[in-house]
Amino acid sequence: METTGKVIKCKAAIAWGPHMPLSIEEIEVAPPKAHEVRVKILASGICHSDNHVLKGKLSNIKFPIILGHEAAGIVESVGEGVTDLKPGDKVISLCVPQCRECVCCQNPKTNLCLRNDIMKLTGLMADGTSRFVCKGQQIYNCASTSTFTEYTVLDETSAVKIDDNAPADKVCLIGCGFSTGYGSAVNVAKVEPGSSCAIFGLGGIGLSVVMGCKVAGAARIIGVDINPDKFEKAKELGVTDCINPRDYDKPVHEVLAGMTNHGVDYSFECIGNIDMMVSALQSCHYGYGTCVIIGVPSSSEKLSFNPLLLLTGRTLKGAFFGNLKSKDSVPQLVSDYLAKKINLDSLVSHYVSFDKINDGFELILSGKCIRTVLTF
Amino acid sequence: METTGKVIKCKAAIAWGPHMPLSIEEIEVAPPKAHEVRVKILASGICHSDNHVLKGKLSNIKFPIILGHEAAGIVESVGEGVTDLKPGDKVISLCVPQCRECVCCQNPKTNLCLRNDIMKLTGLMADGTSRFVCKGQQIYNCASTSTFTEYTVLDETSAVKIDDNAPADKVCLIGCGFSTGYGSAVNVAKVEPGSSCAIFGLGGIGLSVVMGCKVAGAARIIGVDINPDKFEKAKELGVTDCINPRDYDKPVHEVLAGMTNHGVDYSFECIGNIDMMVSALQSCHYGYGTCVIIGVPSSSEKLSFNPLLLLTGRTLKGAFFGNLKSKDSVPQLVSDYLAKKINLDSLVSHYVSFDKINDGFELILSGKCIRTVLTF
Repeated sequence: METTGKVIKCKAAIAWGPHMPLSIEEIEVAPPKAHEVRVKILASGICHSDNHVLKGKLSNIKFPIILGHEAAGIVESVGEGVTDLKPGDKVISLCVPQCRECVCCQNPKTNLCLRNDIMKLTGLMADGTSRFVCKGQQIYNCASTSTFTEYTVLDETSAVKIDDNAPADKVCLIGCGFSTGYGSAVNVAKVEPGSSCAIFGLGGIGLSVVMGCKVAGAARIIGVDINPDKFEKAKELGVTDCINPRDYDKPVHEVLAGMTNHGVDYSFECIGNIDMMVSALQSCHYGYGTCVIIGVPSSSEKLSFNPLLLLTGRTLKGAFFGNLKSKDSVPQLVSDYLAKKINLDSLVSHYVSFDKINDGFELILSGKCIRTVLTF
Repeated sequence: METTGKVIKCKAAIAWGPHMPLSIEEIEVAPPKAHEVRVKILASGICHSDNHVLKGKLSNIKFPIILGHEAAGIVESVGEGVTDLKPGDKVISLCVPQCRECVCCQNPKTNLCLRNDIMKLTGLMADGTSRFVCKGQQIYNCASTSTFTEYTVLDETSAVKIDDNAPADKVCLIGCGFSTGYGSAVNVAKVEPGSSCAIFGLGGIGLSVVMGCKVAGAARIIGVDINPDKFEKAKELGVTDCINPRDYDKPVHEVLAGMTNHGVDYSFECIGNIDMMVSALQSCHYGYGTCVIIGVPSSSEKLSFNPLLLLTGRTLKGAFFGNLKSKDSVPQLVSDYLAKKINLDSLVSHYVSFDKINDGFELILSGKCIRTVLTF
């Protein structure tokens, strides 16, 4: 049945409000307007940020909303003026868009395209309207993407064509988790050959950092996690030493200082825990250590530390999506996966069918999950 | 009278404890041991850090102490094994030494020579003893220097020969304040041509940052101070716009955002005020802005902010002495001064004779002083 230009009725997981399970509902997805594309989702990862929204940890998010921002799919139809995408293209959703025109896109230092909705949190398309209706009510979108639905509508700057041969249920992770971690190592920290690195949190983001550190030639890659079940996979992916802070009666930064002659070159916080951010900063070497914050904490939390940690020559930085310019980077990362240069398979610990999405969120809390991918 | 190898009796300003005025006393200065030099001080600047110690704001400083760490003088005698300095050489004291041998000296990213005493705060020479005695009591030194005395003893790594023609009462500022500010702009932030900069605090450090920004080719240099008396000199030195936060009923970072299309490329905190550090971080542009912390706050104070400021792509860093490798940089900066490439004369607002040192400290609090230089 030809659907172009028509409203599509399909299933989506609606978050009606915080602290409630998601509800699979029938929704209406409007056709794409000018410079938009409508995409049939094939696979979507579940990210900790989605869980943060559901748990009410991120303020200013508008409900009801369709979450999800890490997906691969097929373009169903395109709106007027779309030139680089066509129906049938395999695409990845881009939670950080790349318009190639704004001052940020033209600045090589940043990927934070001004069209991003991560900072403004309107929950709407660029024209200020939504493409989703459920039970007569407008539904907000998430990070200009919304992928916990059979169909979504994306701005042309928020989707990029990838190799048709790429398996959606793996490369979807390039839409957020993998790129965020990997880019933080190779592009934000700019890890150098022979350097020492400490990664706090060995979930999907942390393991992607590990892969980035390894590709960059780090000599020592130290994984830190309170769950020792994560150590085996971490070592497979390149971690040289694993530390469980609970095994020591001194702070973890002192343990790391003892292992590395006063501290590591690069540290990465991949949990979103304020105390671990300070530990990560303390763990990097005075004079030249760099700490990269990746995990997203609750909106109300403040990072608090003695500024002498900076005055003694440390650098503290952060980024979204590994500061990778998304349209430029994602197709290349997909090719790298197909060429077996990067290993996404190890990051997918669970598959869950879309209608069991709440089981997927429970897996996050179980401690047994690296990344869960929803299949449609 | 030949003094080589003998104890020298001279005057020094002793800080017997915090919250007390300095006391000019007769002290005994021992001859230099191996790899040390004894220096007759010609001129010494008074730095805010000295005042911090006197006001009890920096913990772990040992009393009684001879403060001062920003001086020029003449080598009186040298200890065994000193090869690059000889009696009669004009030198600048180096509060951050450069041994050229340790892992930090061999790392191009940092100036924090492991022989520095800024982090360990022993208050003693490398062999764990003092060269100063007053009334039979050992006196501690300050940052391996101690320049509020007619004679001091320095490790050979804490002094560097400069051009004999350099005026001590100007180039002494290269020993701390000038280099700290200037280096923060050109070497820590690495300000780029055409960029926008905001400098919080227009004292001696802040004005030195201004000079660094100008030399680096910044297009917009915005000075921020609550004392409008500082604006005229700031503009002479290169500031393009001055802001008094008290003239606005919105936060200064919002004022700067309005002036600069969402924020500056580089911001510098030159006060040591925790709240201003956060303002400086907020003032730099998301995606690519860098904030450099230069001011030293009280030891007990913590910097506290929403980590989203980092996750949205800002960088926060700091350094001592502008991250300049001291032995390499100081003679060149002296030459730059003699070649009129840098302007130290504008930084010296007051001269005070050494025996009136307490008047010099009062000037710091008056708001009328950029930098006070003690003459001997």
